[in-house]
Amino acid sequence: MPGLRIFCDAPLSDSALQVLKQGTTSHELIFPRRGTESVLAPTEPDPALDTADVAFGQPDVSGVLESKRLRWIQLTSAGFSRYDTPEFRSFAKLRGLIVTNSSAVYAEACAEHVFAFMLAQARKLPEGISSRCANGSPQWVALREGSVVLKNQSAVILGFGAIASRLLELLSPFDMKVIAMRRNPRGDEGVPTVTPENLRGALGTADHVINILPDNAASAQFISAERLDWMKRGAVFYNIGRGTTVDQEALSASLRSGHLGAAWLDVTDPEPLPDAHPLWTAPNCYITPHTAGGHRSEPETLVRHFLENFSRFLADMPLRDRII
Amino acid sequence: MPGLRIFCDAPLSDSALQVLKQGTTSHELIFPRRGTESVLAPTEPDPALDTADVAFGQPDVSGVLESKRLRWIQLTSAGFSRYDTPEFRSFAKLRGLIVTNSSAVYAEACAEHVFAFMLAQARKLPEGISSRCANGSPQWVALREGSVVLKNQSAVILGFGAIASRLLELLSPFDMKVIAMRRNPRGDEGVPTVTPENLRGALGTADHVINILPDNAASAQFISAERLDWMKRGAVFYNIGRGTTVDQEALSASLRSGHLGAAWLDVTDPEPLPDAHPLWTAPNCYITPHTAGGHRSEPETLVRHFLENFSRFLADMPLRDRII
Repeated sequence: MPGLRIFCDAPLSDSALQVLKQGTTSHELIFPRRGTESVLAPTEPDPALDTADVAFGQPDVSGVLESKRLRWIQLTSAGFSRYDTPEFRSFAKLRGLIVTNSSAVYAEACAEHVFAFMLAQARKLPEGISSRCANGSPQWVALREGSVVLKNQSAVILGFGAIASRLLELLSPFDMKVIAMRRNPRGDEGVPTVTPENLRGALGTADHVINILPDNAASAQFISAERLDWMKRGAVFYNIGRGTTVDQEALSASLRSGHLGAAWLDVTDPEPLPDAHPLWTAPNCYITPHTAGGHRSEPETLVRHFLENFSRFLADMPLRDRII
Repeated sequence: MPGLRIFCDAPLSDSALQVLKQGTTSHELIFPRRGTESVLAPTEPDPALDTADVAFGQPDVSGVLESKRLRWIQLTSAGFSRYDTPEFRSFAKLRGLIVTNSSAVYAEACAEHVFAFMLAQARKLPEGISSRCANGSPQWVALREGSVVLKNQSAVILGFGAIASRLLELLSPFDMKVIAMRRNPRGDEGVPTVTPENLRGALGTADHVINILPDNAASAQFISAERLDWMKRGAVFYNIGRGTTVDQEALSASLRSGHLGAAWLDVTDPEPLPDAHPLWTAPNCYITPHTAGGHRSEPETLVRHFLENFSRFLADMPLRDRII
């Protein structure tokens, strides 16, 4: 295949950029006028995109829709709601445009992040770290009695993809009873899997409810007041999917009423929440600022994932993490 | 065997006490004048001990040394330094007194606790939870870039017993490179195991140094300034053994100099540390108040572990968790 023009607006470290350059020597890398700060930040059209065959990053949607040569986009995020519209999908279909994301890059860090949430809650780390209580004191007894072991507990995982698969591996030494929810169960999940319509029973017995749902029309406010009510008293809710999938007022109310035992959120809507938002002061609500997928070697891993797909693209092989 | 007199000074919940009573119906339970608040609190001699065949709890050492009938003590702790003296050991040997501890009861919770520490550090949970930073902000970039995944990292485990065995199981999905240290390696550890004399190389390469050493003459201040220096720059130190095994001034200095990356401690010497202790303000030092072994069902689990050994004792079978 002759030299291709690769548009890259991914915010890369110097070392990651070197890896990208070395992996694309017989092709041409083109860059936007300025790099984006975050893979999640909104972008604007860039004229360079119009001449590209391949895009790696978060190319502006309107720019893509005007592009003449673009054949493949690899997004640097796992989420892709910006591109998940009927207009974009029909453009892609008409033009044979392939879109892949970087799920595989974030799956390990996201699975470890929600697993860190689960263990921090089980061992009551936030309370423990802020306490200077003495052995035998009432606070000490309460801390120990309030702690649990994950072993033999139960969990429901909402949304079954790369993160859920990895999380199941991490949980395997704990002999937990896990049920997954997936819109279209395939039978390869490795655990009992229900559809959204058959979720109620599973929600009612789970010690842990782990939300990994992406942002789309079907998932909007999926964690509603009703589904929160279905959860077992004292259950712990986790969200590393997208904030839009949760009725946040209802979540706050459930925590304040003592129905839900705790909530650990890496995503909210918006991010960050305004300072006056009730979730900041809801009891046992812990929020990290959308850092679940981050890790020290993220830029290099993003580039290597792109280069692996680039060699598949050149060889006309199926691409990994294809979403459109 | 005729009815035995079982002295119990373990601080039990009502439900745990019921389980104990049901499991010892043809025997006689005798209780001290008042229960102890903590399994770690110092006790005082109790006349009831003098008439007991079996003791379950933390019987006073001088009381044991004066006892006439005592044949077996099951401690409610994992640590047993109070009883680990030449005088006590020779008394036990002379009298055929068996001592068991409750290691098995705490192993799961302790292993999960230190694992929670490792993941909380990897995912930078304390910083994340206290941040309200925006996507793309410098603080956000620093948080994501400062986070790591445990997968493929390396660890050294100091002290190899029930907790280390369980921790190795929990770590297995992470493909970590683990080296254990044990005074007398037996070859059944499942990972490369070195003696204290050959620790330096392992300490110099480990991302995580996990201390599970018990309190005894050989372990006093084992984590010295010199061994801290041997650790890799940026390494993370964890202690769920005993506080006496660490030179705490040297640990504080290592954190303050930026050599050690972080320390997560469940045990200190004394507990709690005085408010002016430098570890409270050392950077990236997180301390939980000796809650690693605690869990909601702890009293019942202690009783069931005792009852299992009690039936073995009656049947003249080897007891579990025998230490003397």
